[in-house]
Amino acid sequence: MLVLSSPSGAGKTTLSRRLLSTEQNIEMSVSVTTRKPRSGEVDGKDYYFISADKFQEMVQNEQLLEWAEVFGNHYGTPRGPVEMTLAEGSDVLFDIDWQGTQQLHQRARDDLVRVFILPPSAEHLRQRLISRAQDPVEVVAKRMAKASDEISHWAEYDYVLINDDLERCSEEIFAILRSERLKRARRTGLSNFVRSMRADL
Amino acid sequence: MLVLSSPSGAGKTTLSRRLLSTEQNIEMSVSVTTRKPRSGEVDGKDYYFISADKFQEMVQNEQLLEWAEVFGNHYGTPRGPVEMTLAEGSDVLFDIDWQGTQQLHQRARDDLVRVFILPPSAEHLRQRLISRAQDPVEVVAKRMAKASDEISHWAEYDYVLINDDLERCSEEIFAILRSERLKRARRTGLSNFVRSMRADL
Repeated sequence: MLVLSSPSGAGKTTLSRRLLSTEQNIEMSVSVTTRKPRSGEVDGKDYYFISADKFQEMVQNEQLLEWAEVFGNHYGTPRGPVEMTLAEGSDVLFDIDWQGTQQLHQRARDDLVRVFILPPSAEHLRQRLISRAQDPVEVVAKRMAKASDEISHWAEYDYVLINDDLERCSEEIFAILRSERLKRARRTGLSNFVRSMRADL
Repeated sequence: MLVLSSPSGAGKTTLSRRLLSTEQNIEMSVSVTTRKPRSGEVDGKDYYFISADKFQEMVQNEQLLEWAEVFGNHYGTPRGPVEMTLAEGSDVLFDIDWQGTQQLHQRARDDLVRVFILPPSAEHLRQRLISRAQDPVEVVAKRMAKASDEISHWAEYDYVLINDDLERCSEEIFAILRSERLKRARRTGLSNFVRSMRADL
C-alpha cells in the first residue's frame, strides 16, 4: 500500500498517472466523495461521486478504510476494492491527505509506504493553484491555507520528495516502489527458496 | 552506509563495481586483511594486506569498525576512512560478511542499509566456486560450507535480492540506494525548506 500525499497543486495527480501507466501490479484506489464533480472528472475513475446519506451509511457499515472532511465535503477510501486488489497480489496506490494517511497508518502500519511530495517553492504552488481557473478566488485562498496545513505534516511520511523536475520525481517514486518490494519482510516465499538451496549445497 | 553481503560466488564484486562506477557520492570501504593477496589483487584497492601483528594493533587501538576471522585469516574495516567519507557527505559501500554486518548494525543501526544477494541456485553457486581455479579442492569445499553458513543469515538483512540477471540486480541496488536517500530521516535540511515555504504561503 503506497500513499502519495501532497498539497493540491504539487503535481501528485500527474505523478500517480505516470506510476500507474509505467509499473505493473499496482492499482489506484478510487475514493468516494460527497463533493460535486469538476468538469472533466469521471465517476468511477477520478472519484465515486455519492450522496451524503450514502457516505454516512458507508461510515456506519465500516466500509471505509479512512475518511476525512475537507471544506465541508467528505472523502473516503472504500475497503472492498483495496482488500480485493491486495488479495490478488497487486499493490494499491492511494491519493489521500494527511488525515487519511494517519488513519491508514494506524490500521496497517507495516504494509503502508508513505510518500510526501513537496512543491519546489511557495510561489510555484501559488501559481498552480491560481491557474486552476475553475475555482473562485475565495476557494483558492482556502486551498492555499489547506496546502500550508498539508505541508505541515510532511514529517509523518517515510519518504519526502521535491517535485522540481517531473521526470526525476517520477523516477524517484519508481525507485521507492521497486526497493520497497525488495524488503526482506515482503519477500514471502524466500524462506523455502533458501532452505532448498542450502539442502543442495 | 550500505552493506552488500552474499556468499562468495554470487556476483557481489561485479555488482559493487557497477554501483561505484554508476552512482555519485558513494565510496567503497577497503578492508584490511591478514591473508595473502590472490593473483591480480591490488594492495589498497581490493584490500590493505597487513600482518597479523598490525591487525591486532588495530583491534586494540579500536581502529576497526568491525572485524571477523574466516578460515584462519582476519578481515576488518578501518574506521578512519569511513568516518572521513561520511563527514564529506558521501555514502560508504561495504563488502563484508554477516559477522561484520552484525557488528556494524550494533554500532550504527539507523545509518546502515543491509542488502543480501542470493545466487539463483545452489548449482549456480557451485559452478562459480569450482571455476575459480586458483584454489585447491579442499578450499572450494570449505568455501561451499562457508557459503551455506553465509546464506543462513539472509533474514538479518533489510533487502534481499536474487542475482539471476546482473542487469536487473544492478538496477535493484541502484533503486535501493536512491530510495534510501529519499527517506525522511535522511533529508536533513528539509525542516528549514518547509518552514520558509509555509512562511511564504
